[in-house]
Amino acid sequence: MNVIKLKKKLEEFFLEDLGELDVSSQTIFGPEARGEAVIIAKENGILAGIDVIQTGYSLFQQKVDVTLKKRDGDKLTKGDIIAEIEGPVGTILSGERVILNLLQRMSGVATLTNKAVNLLQSDHTRICDTRKTSPGLRMFEKYAVRCGGGFNHRFGLYDGVMIKDNHIAFAGSIINAVKEVREKTGHMVKIEVEIETEKQLLEAIEAEADVIMFDNRSPEEVAKFVELTPKHIVTEASGGIGLNNLADFRHTNVDYISLGILTHSYKSLDISLNVK
Amino acid sequence: MNVIKLKKKLEEFFLEDLGELDVSSQTIFGPEARGEAVIIAKENGILAGIDVIQTGYSLFQQKVDVTLKKRDGDKLTKGDIIAEIEGPVGTILSGERVILNLLQRMSGVATLTNKAVNLLQSDHTRICDTRKTSPGLRMFEKYAVRCGGGFNHRFGLYDGVMIKDNHIAFAGSIINAVKEVREKTGHMVKIEVEIETEKQLLEAIEAEADVIMFDNRSPEEVAKFVELTPKHIVTEASGGIGLNNLADFRHTNVDYISLGILTHSYKSLDISLNVK
Amino acid sequence: MNVIKLKKKLEEFFLEDLGELDVSSQTIFGPEARGEAVIIAKENGILAGIDVIQTGYSLFQQKVDVTLKKRDGDKLTKGDIIAEIEGPVGTILSGERVILNLLQRMSGVATLTNKAVNLLQSDHTRICDTRKTSPGLRMFEKYAVRCGGGFNHRFGLYDGVMIKDNHIAFAGSIINAVKEVREKTGHMVKIEVEIETEKQLLEAIEAEADVIMFDNRSPEEVAKFVELTPKHIVTEASGGIGLNNLADFRHTNVDYISLGILTHSYKSLDISLNVK
Amino acid sequence: MNVIKLKKKLEEFFLEDLGELDVSSQTIFGPEARGEAVIIAKENGILAGIDVIQTGYSLFQQKVDVTLKKRDGDKLTKGDIIAEIEGPVGTILSGERVILNLLQRMSGVATLTNKAVNLLQSDHTRICDTRKTSPGLRMFEKYAVRCGGGFNHRFGLYDGVMIKDNHIAFAGSIINAVKEVREKTGHMVKIEVEIETEKQLLEAIEAEADVIMFDNRSPEEVAKFVELTPKHIVTEASGGIGLNNLADFRHTNVDYISLGILTHSYKSLDISLNVK
Amino acid sequence: MNVIKLKKKLEEFFLEDLGELDVSSQTIFGPEARGEAVIIAKENGILAGIDVIQTGYSLFQQKVDVTLKKRDGDKLTKGDIIAEIEGPVGTILSGERVILNLLQRMSGVATLTNKAVNLLQSDHTRICDTRKTSPGLRMFEKYAVRCGGGFNHRFGLYDGVMIKDNHIAFAGSIINAVKEVREKTGHMVKIEVEIETEKQLLEAIEAEADVIMFDNRSPEEVAKFVELTPKHIVTEASGGIGLNNLADFRHTNVDYISLGILTHSYKSLDISLNVK
Amino acid sequence: MNVIKLKKKLEEFFLEDLGELDVSSQTIFGPEARGEAVIIAKENGILAGIDVIQTGYSLFQQKVDVTLKKRDGDKLTKGDIIAEIEGPVGTILSGERVILNLLQRMSGVATLTNKAVNLLQSDHTRICDTRKTSPGLRMFEKYAVRCGGGFNHRFGLYDGVMIKDNHIAFAGSIINAVKEVREKTGHMVKIEVEIETEKQLLEAIEAEADVIMFDNRSPEEVAKFVELTPKHIVTEASGGIGLNNLADFRHTNVDYISLGILTHSYKSLDISLNVK
Repeated sequence: MNVIKLKKKLEEFFLEDLGELDVSSQTIFGPEARGEAVIIAKENGILAGIDVIQTGYSLFQQKVDVTLKKRDGDKLTKGDIIAEIEGPVGTILSGERVILNLLQRMSGVATLTNKAVNLLQSDHTRICDTRKTSPGLRMFEKYAVRCGGGFNHRFGLYDGVMIKDNHIAFAGSIINAVKEVREKTGHMVKIEVEIETEKQLLEAIEAEADVIMFDNRSPEEVAKFVELTPKHIVTEASGGIGLNNLADFRHTNVDYISLGILTHSYKSLDISLNVK
Repeated sequence: MNVIKLKKKLEEFFLEDLGELDVSSQTIFGPEARGEAVIIAKENGILAGIDVIQTGYSLFQQKVDVTLKKRDGDKLTKGDIIAEIEGPVGTILSGERVILNLLQRMSGVATLTNKAVNLLQSDHTRICDTRKTSPGLRMFEKYAVRCGGGFNHRFGLYDGVMIKDNHIAFAGSIINAVKEVREKTGHMVKIEVEIETEKQLLEAIEAEADVIMFDNRSPEEVAKFVELTPKHIVTEASGGIGLNNLADFRHTNVDYISLGILTHSYKSLDISLNVK
Repeated sequence: MNVIKLKKKLEEFFLEDLGELDVSSQTIFGPEARGEAVIIAKENGILAGIDVIQTGYSLFQQKVDVTLKKRDGDKLTKGDIIAEIEGPVGTILSGERVILNLLQRMSGVATLTNKAVNLLQSDHTRICDTRKTSPGLRMFEKYAVRCGGGFNHRFGLYDGVMIKDNHIAFAGSIINAVKEVREKTGHMVKIEVEIETEKQLLEAIEAEADVIMFDNRSPEEVAKFVELTPKHIVTEASGGIGLNNLADFRHTNVDYISLGILTHSYKSLDISLNVK
Repeated sequence: MNVIKLKKKLEEFFLEDLGELDVSSQTIFGPEARGEAVIIAKENGILAGIDVIQTGYSLFQQKVDVTLKKRDGDKLTKGDIIAEIEGPVGTILSGERVILNLLQRMSGVATLTNKAVNLLQSDHTRICDTRKTSPGLRMFEKYAVRCGGGFNHRFGLYDGVMIKDNHIAFAGSIINAVKEVREKTGHMVKIEVEIETEKQLLEAIEAEADVIMFDNRSPEEVAKFVELTPKHIVTEASGGIGLNNLADFRHTNVDYISLGILTHSYKSLDISLNVK
Repeated sequence: MNVIKLKKKLEEFFLEDLGELDVSSQTIFGPEARGEAVIIAKENGILAGIDVIQTGYSLFQQKVDVTLKKRDGDKLTKGDIIAEIEGPVGTILSGERVILNLLQRMSGVATLTNKAVNLLQSDHTRICDTRKTSPGLRMFEKYAVRCGGGFNHRFGLYDGVMIKDNHIAFAGSIINAVKEVREKTGHMVKIEVEIETEKQLLEAIEAEADVIMFDNRSPEEVAKFVELTPKHIVTEASGGIGLNNLADFRHTNVDYISLGILTHSYKSLDISLNVK
Repeated sequence: MNVIKLKKKLEEFFLEDLGELDVSSQTIFGPEARGEAVIIAKENGILAGIDVIQTGYSLFQQKVDVTLKKRDGDKLTKGDIIAEIEGPVGTILSGERVILNLLQRMSGVATLTNKAVNLLQSDHTRICDTRKTSPGLRMFEKYAVRCGGGFNHRFGLYDGVMIKDNHIAFAGSIINAVKEVREKTGHMVKIEVEIETEKQLLEAIEAEADVIMFDNRSPEEVAKFVELTPKHIVTEASGGIGLNNLADFRHTNVDYISLGILTHSYKSLDISLNVK
């Protein structure tokens, strides 16, 4: 993650939660009240977002000492201590919710991604994400996918071309659409074409797409399409794939399977902060 | 929702997704390419976030006409048209993902909330949310809880006092903690005390807390605690309650049940945009 | 105050005053020119805003040492040293005006609030503020009210319901208005009803408002209304009350008197920074 | 005022007051509830800030019609209608407080400035402001000074040099200080020197300062200093001048009298919004 | 360009130039003073940035009518009218400088790019830009490169991998470096390797880099390296190439020549706004 | 430069270049990979912007040690080391481009300004800039002009009045225009009048303009106009003056020559960062 963006985002998130002041903690605790706390896993999973703890607390005025006990990507077992914290109780509690909200979500994404990777059990095929991320949290969720053993699809509309049915319809044909894009974009942008039929696949291959995505195809179709595609073109399966049927794609030899659920339907991992 | 904040947030979200430009759509479609599209429900649920569509498209330069077919809180049946859209295809597609990402999440929260309300089937007890929201999206998710038939707990650390074990330990007793807070805060701030035992409950009642929250208690304990609490004090059950055991709390007569899952572990409702 | 918001606000304020550069100090003083200064009270009053000094100077690149001699809420006597400062003269002078502008205003609010508290001389009735604050400075002015011995009314339109004549007219009756609000808002939001007559008062009591505000009533009416109101409902007097007639309300037994003047018509306390 | 800055500031101020939503108005009024209102003067004074009404309401989603009945700088008599408003009641009420908070403050500054101008009753000497403005509101308050018949001193540290005792002490002499500044700054920046004695005055004249400020001098000294100063150098009196003794400076022939109170200790003008 | 970003940037730029107010125009012109103006080319070149005119003026309160006479990418001949403008003179003049500053720079970049394209006179080799853009203006300058007939290299550090000597040294070898990157990044990110020798080239080919950049090589070396590179790998020449020797690379058959000068050392095209 | 603004600008610039992450460096280098680097001049020139290096690297999380070897305004000879850097290689490389982009541009402006000063070779006449700066970079470019031995004209539309032909036409005459401005603006704002003929010059003198600008005049006319202008009025020549004919104005005795090219058509100075 870009640490300068991380700081700005955390500032924004603390402003959302604290507003003018933390009425509870600023009313009860004086600046001299110090305490210790641990951040602890309350269920098994994969950790992601450890930087949020230190960077988060560094934004407050009073110094909070954070000792990390785990690293991003580590397996968490229920009861594991993720970090030890020492500092003014008021600050520890004021920062708690935002930090946990991020850590739980990021670890939730990493855990789900890891589950998908394990279900797939493939040496070749990689799991990747989509742009179906929580608005404002894309950097966090995409990073968490990497922590869980997954890979990132494009980051936004700016860093990769995806030619879909509407683009194709407007351009007249896949070949026209790819050609038009090639004529206008530079060499660092990859062009992906979304196809559904063998006819479209062959057209996309002829058009020299960099990546071809098989949309909503059965494992058998995917396997067949992969076979038809030259090696130097990257293949991707997408649509209608979830944890329930992911294993069916194990032997398709497709390069990437992209899963919207990784970021649009994960559950937060249960992590809590306990003050001693 | 505050529409001025809505606009600012949407601007931020579009910047995240579009960056410098939408390489695909801006490369293929000219400004003269117009089209029609529908936003459609692909599964059953409760709608939330309809304002996102119109306000979202209004931020682009070229005019997009949006005709709403549903209202927030409406039941959606698979296949229902939520909105009809007409305008430049490039703009329709550039705005699609961010608008859907929000609409799907908000409708996901509303649908889950509604499910909880229906599971509980109580004329008295209300379902409410927590501060366990996605950082940066609290306004959206709290609004969606209301669309689903739920209620909002406090919005942040600034608009309500929650006295937890750490506060109590530091202040010496519940009575001291509440007294200290009352001495410093005004009359528009409610004071909630979190308790686990009958002894603590009685102390909280004596302290004249405005709201008493029973943390991680069984339905029987909740029912008993409710009985012990004077009517003018609001009661809340929280912790360890999920869809699986929510119905068990139907007859406890507690005023509110707060559920973290409504905002920390919902799944996006499947909604898509189809260009004709 | 929320220190993260404090920093962001101070940054904004320094940008307003310094713009591209401090032409005077950056032209005359080199980085090696060091000096000492004191911030000193030039009239009697109550101090508020001491954090502004340290947090303010911490935003500059060169380190400025600040030793605080007073605390917020302290009585200031003309000539009292509030803080001692040591560092690069250029930085001390570049930061001076913004820091004083805030400190003088906040201490002005605290001093006026304290004057009101002393005029009222009540063990029971509390002085509180309103939303009539300087746009952009609400956090500062509301904090200063607390430093002066006053209390805060709601922070904004988001954290408390105030039902006024227009709302009542539209809803049909006080009872309808309160009922409508109760049906839609959660348990952490207090509902205040503004009334002028005994009839309205009784209706508000029946509607179980959390707070009832007596608008523009004489001390006698206020006393009578308080008597008619059940103890668990908070009472507030507002409108037409100023320093001139505040003492007349001493024996009304009302819970709160809210005063717009605390924040809309205070004068800055005379505080200056003297370089030795 | 710069209208682009005005919009940005108003957005910020509405976010401060409305936060996530206006709990009262958004709960009670539906979008179909329309109403009319007037903004009305409740005491005599000078109007400033009329643009705030239209620009303010234009930021909301639903259209509010504003008909202005007065212009900035106009004399207001108690009861005068400043503007007529028609639109959704909810929006009218949500925007009310921020708009009034600004309008009352700006008109307060204009009224106080006008009072000073009238007290001084001079054909030659102008009243001007200082940098002692409310942080974040300088553009508004300086504009209001102009509406009241006053003039603006420099806008910030960036647009004019003010050489004070500390600068002089460091540079060795007034002549050195002015020389140093002249050597480094361009021709569009004016150099003002603050002096207290005749000796210093003569030195400042020799140094060819553009403006000389007589700090904390009696009317007699000011008159004498003015006489000693060549015509092409602008003279300014400052320090220790208030409404009580302003008239004493009527015949000093000084060019400008700068008054901190115009912006640091004004009272808001009583203006209210009444819904019909 | 992303129009939402364009508006935000223009707002920022107008704030930089106008500050609190345009002292000249707001002092002399009343809102009723209307006028007409033309934006006119004062030297030959290629136009870029036409959207800046309309979007820029749309940010002001008073409506300005803009009629465009040219499109981005058009050839401009001295004297050509680019746009006709009608509206309040004060607004036309307040917006003039920022709009021209952008239009002149963007057209300067487009003109220089076009010159390079014409000097190269190649059917195969494309001219592209670098990340050596003016901080804060990358979107504008990269767009202008496209208007001039050039292509964009990566937009930032986030949308493409460039493996340089330091990365290689740290990873041990080109093959290791590429392998490490491939193991961690997804399929939409291209990997470019910078090489200087034939040995490195062969290693980069073996590593299956997507793009290979020949750094600071003579035309002969470039031609030879191109020949050695398989067709599906994109080739790029960079370093030490300027307008003076660009033509020497005409027959190298390299795919891209990247030129830092396009954005770091262009001169503004002379364009002015004349009020009739 | 205002260091608070410098930090905010650098944050914005790093966000532009790094986006979500630096794919190359964050993929290859671990946090433990440390290195040393030098920033070095690759051609002769004048240095400007040294603060950018330290302030820039201070925004990253990991500490980078920067030892400055030169100061702003120093002459650079090809090969000169400007700064030595030690720290994590990943951070050094992630920050490199933005820092160099600014340093090269600022030094480019300083070098061009210095060239102009040397070409003019005048003890009396000063070189100054205009408002033709890169949008968003005015503070940086105006500072660089000072480093190169030049002076700053006004910073924006807010800090100086420039009366041009359109203003004069609207006001009826130069005398009217100046009078109108004087009646409305305070004593810290200078009024400059742009003239082309002797008749206009005499009118501007009679109007008591603070500064008179001779627009597009030959050296002979400028010399003559200077002679006709009283000493206490500042004179400026502008328009049609470039490096080619600057020396012709050496003996005109005009006070200032303003040059748009200093900021609108400079070339970046070649400066690079080499990791050892």
